[in-house]
Amino acid sequence: MNKQTDTDVIINGKKYTLSGYESNDYMQRVASYLNKKHDELVNQTDFRYLDKETQNILMQLNIADDYFKLKNQMKNKESEDDTKNNEIFDLKHEIIALQTKLEACEKELEEEKTKYYEEEKKNIRIETELKDLRQSAENKKDLAEKKKKISKTMWLPETGRKFGGD
Amino acid sequence: MNKQTDTDVIINGKKYTLSGYESNDYMQRVASYLNKKHDELVNQTDFRYLDKETQNILMQLNIADDYFKLKNQMKNKESEDDTKNNEIFDLKHEIIALQTKLEACEKELEEEKTKYYEEEKKNIRIETELKDLRQSAENKKDLAEKKKKISKTMWLPETGRKFGGD
Repeated sequence: MNKQTDTDVIINGKKYTLSGYESNDYMQRVASYLNKKHDELVNQTDFRYLDKETQNILMQLNIADDYFKLKNQMKNKESEDDTKNNEIFDLKHEIIALQTKLEACEKELEEEKTKYYEEEKKNIRIETELKDLRQSAENKKDLAEKKKKISKTMWLPETGRKFGGD
Repeated sequence: MNKQTDTDVIINGKKYTLSGYESNDYMQRVASYLNKKHDELVNQTDFRYLDKETQNILMQLNIADDYFKLKNQMKNKESEDDTKNNEIFDLKHEIIALQTKLEACEKELEEEKTKYYEEEKKNIRIETELKDLRQSAENKKDLAEKKKKISKTMWLPETGRKFGGD
């Protein structure tokens, strides 16, 4: 808080020394506001014809009216403010919920990728095994064919010798 | 806006008829505020010794001070309000970003699951094929064994006849 100071202001053309903790600038703004208010009233037709006391009460009522109007605005702002606080609270909750969902999804995706990778490896292994087995089956078949041919070519001369022997 | 009405209020023990668009309730609140203010000042030591005009100015200054203090509070509220609006804007953006990420993740997860499912089907097919091939290989082996046995049991009598024929 500022230290107490004396400030000279002019209100309704008269000098007043105001003592307070407010800045000189603040005091001057208040004084010029009062002068403006007073001028507004003086410019209203019948103000000048009222007695001093009534004029004074009218001044007070007009300033108080500004104050109460602002109070109502303040009240509305505060309820707006509450609405915004609730909105912020809800939005933050929504963010946490989304982050949790996203983390879960990323985890599941990782697991799914590993599962796929394992299955793919397994596939390659089995396919190779299958290929080898087919190959060895082929080889056996060829071998069997060759054996057949060989056995045929071995039989003929023996039979020949047989006939020749009679 | 309400229609203009006359409202009687008592300020500093004197009756005033106020014409305005404000509700009777509002006018009464303003009047009782002015009376309270006046009482506060009267209870201050040297107020009562001041001339009427200075008393009036002091009253006006005090009401105006309430007004200006509230104005400052209002100014702070408004800058708080801006901060909150920005926060809400940022949070909403964060939510959109997270939702986009989540959708992308869920799409990729779906694709990954389909890939895995296809690979699994392929696996089952190849495994069956492999099993069948192994089975037929087994069968061939058994057949070969049987043939061997049969050929042995066929050779003996023939050989016998052969010896017997010499």
